[in-house]
Amino acid sequence: MSAELDSLLVRRRRALGSHAEISYDRPVHVSHAEGVWVHTIEGEKLLDVYNNVPHVGHAHPRVVAAIAQQASRIASNTRYLDDNIIRYAERLLASLPGPLDTCLFVNSGSEANDLAWRLAKAHTGFGGALVLEHSYHGITEAVTALSTAVRQAPAPHVEQLRAPPANSASEVHDALNRLGARGFKPAAFFLDSALTSSGIHDPPAEWVQRITRAVHAAGGLIVADEVQIGLGRSGSHLWGFERRGMQPDIVTLGKPIGNGYPLGAVLTSRRIAEPFQKRTGFFSTFGGNPVAAAAGLAVLESEGLMANAQATGTYLRERLQGLALEHPALQVRGCGLLVGVEIADQGGRSGDSLTRTVVNGLRERQILIGAEGPRGNVLKLRPPLPFARPHADQLISALAAELSAARARFDPR
Amino acid sequence: MSAELDSLLVRRRRALGSHAEISYDRPVHVSHAEGVWVHTIEGEKLLDVYNNVPHVGHAHPRVVAAIAQQASRIASNTRYLDDNIIRYAERLLASLPGPLDTCLFVNSGSEANDLAWRLAKAHTGFGGALVLEHSYHGITEAVTALSTAVRQAPAPHVEQLRAPPANSASEVHDALNRLGARGFKPAAFFLDSALTSSGIHDPPAEWVQRITRAVHAAGGLIVADEVQIGLGRSGSHLWGFERRGMQPDIVTLGKPIGNGYPLGAVLTSRRIAEPFQKRTGFFSTFGGNPVAAAAGLAVLESEGLMANAQATGTYLRERLQGLALEHPALQVRGCGLLVGVEIADQGGRSGDSLTRTVVNGLRERQILIGAEGPRGNVLKLRPPLPFARPHADQLISALAAELSAARARFDPR
Repeated sequence: MSAELDSLLVRRRRALGSHAEISYDRPVHVSHAEGVWVHTIEGEKLLDVYNNVPHVGHAHPRVVAAIAQQASRIASNTRYLDDNIIRYAERLLASLPGPLDTCLFVNSGSEANDLAWRLAKAHTGFGGALVLEHSYHGITEAVTALSTAVRQAPAPHVEQLRAPPANSASEVHDALNRLGARGFKPAAFFLDSALTSSGIHDPPAEWVQRITRAVHAAGGLIVADEVQIGLGRSGSHLWGFERRGMQPDIVTLGKPIGNGYPLGAVLTSRRIAEPFQKRTGFFSTFGGNPVAAAAGLAVLESEGLMANAQATGTYLRERLQGLALEHPALQVRGCGLLVGVEIADQGGRSGDSLTRTVVNGLRERQILIGAEGPRGNVLKLRPPLPFARPHADQLISALAAELSAARARFDPR
Repeated sequence: MSAELDSLLVRRRRALGSHAEISYDRPVHVSHAEGVWVHTIEGEKLLDVYNNVPHVGHAHPRVVAAIAQQASRIASNTRYLDDNIIRYAERLLASLPGPLDTCLFVNSGSEANDLAWRLAKAHTGFGGALVLEHSYHGITEAVTALSTAVRQAPAPHVEQLRAPPANSASEVHDALNRLGARGFKPAAFFLDSALTSSGIHDPPAEWVQRITRAVHAAGGLIVADEVQIGLGRSGSHLWGFERRGMQPDIVTLGKPIGNGYPLGAVLTSRRIAEPFQKRTGFFSTFGGNPVAAAAGLAVLESEGLMANAQATGTYLRERLQGLALEHPALQVRGCGLLVGVEIADQGGRSGDSLTRTVVNGLRERQILIGAEGPRGNVLKLRPPLPFARPHADQLISALAAELSAARARFDPR
């Protein structure tokens, strides 16, 4: 690394803490970006196969213009009347199936899940939660407890279910019984519709329906966390929960909906929202401000991204399956443009160590991806949605070269 | 109200819920704003004496340009290296006295206080909290429990102290004993340095020092919530806790620091932050993104606003004291440009009802203020910091007219 980069890293550790998370052994020193490309100060041009926040592409001119124009007018709050936030809420609600008719705005997926949790507890009068193993729903105290991927003491009010293909017919009932034995009835089942942190899975509808039926029967609500997969990333449906064949009582949105502008939303029904609003009041200072609404509306204007997620995602998985024929340690999963590639242990090396090697190796080959899953051995591919075939080809070439190099290094037969 | 406004309100209730909070009997339908002025779609020009979020003035060109320029470059996250966020953290830390040397970024004051609470619990190993009566620290589940202004069942881990001038030497010890009797030691004392929701008070340093000494002696941390008064609003100090003569272990920032761009921060010391970062990890997707950092830096460039808060605030309180001579029901409090005017019961009407009448009456006189305090009978004056003498004069004229009209209506002696 350059002396300049080194000195910046020293300043960063000093100001943000020695353990502030940073990606890659050789960090990415960002300069600017557009579409699926991230440019570094050092002059690299990196293909972004990781970030779902820039949903319509990094620094998309339409979103940037909407933010700039509205910021130059007013950035007030939802206690004043603003046409944009009402239009945006109406657009989001019209896109959802079922009885979801009320929209509350916050600033992040964490705040959205925290509010969903408060709504579920208030509505049911219960205090327990079901989540998947290695779940992740955000950083507030309440949703950290719902995030079994975070290192922490187990929370007595939370039970986890195994990710697919595990999770038997009786498992959800067993989990509810264990909750009950500790004095908790289920307020909610929280499900990241993409099962991302649990390893990126795409189970059949019946898998989720079994759980949601049992939770509803026990009086709990279903919360679909769309922070990872919302807005068409699955390729088949605008919202990931539709692909799972479930009807949530609450839907939470975050990451992609503002294309980088901090924005989160909770969509639910009057019977759940209104008693809560009436009893405790609810107001987020920044949530749903006119600039956020302008950004959100500009993101919704995008045409054809879901179809591209379907087409490019299918192509990408086919190419990855081709690689898996040469590298049997690979298992390809996911849907649309949220793809996981699990790497099994091989040649005496653990899958997570191999995964880290591949992630850092790809970064040196100018490609950004991440690692995911309970064992950290799943390559996480989740690019901005303008990601197209040539980008997939570039990724596959680099990944093939990296896997061959890794094999040559570690398994030189 | 016009038919157009009526129909918009119907759509708003339908999309955001019937009990979504809205200000004033006749809502403010925003069009645009600049400095201390808010323009409505209906063509009104309202003097903003309420909003501290547009700290350097609504739609400040320097902040808007910084947001637009950086959004057109990249809006990534703190897992990538970005010069701006390091510079911004360094600037914030340099402005703070004492051992605060580590900065964590989030998206709102709520997220900042939630993280402060998690840090305090992790550091102390305790689970109890002290707050002021009618406290308000945000909307996540954890900080709602610390917000005794919110209608909710009392939380067993929270004890409240009376606001000034009450709170005797023994009260804090009694509160700690009550916590202890319920099995809780104090993780933290949370104090809004402006004592805003508790009624807007400006107690002498000794008042706060007595509490902080007792909490420290019991092993708890001190959290200074600067969401209301940070960045020089007190007129005398950049940070409100300095005015209180206290040294917090954690400082939380929100509302004004991004001038409307969603941004929050937690400033603390390595001994508190690093074990937490190391053990559980901490990452906010949007928190500290390059656009947020650009906005935050642009806000810090402002010169002279603290001196103006001092000068104009002093002038404003003098003029208000003048009004109080004619209207003995008024009591003026606060510091700098965070001013409270308590209205006592009079003429058979309760102070909170009179306060509501004045707030709505001023809105009809083209002036935005709010109501505050445990009884809702404190006028809350908290304008953007470019608020100057002519604006204070306009407010005083309107308030004098409104108070006389109210007296004539309700006490026609």
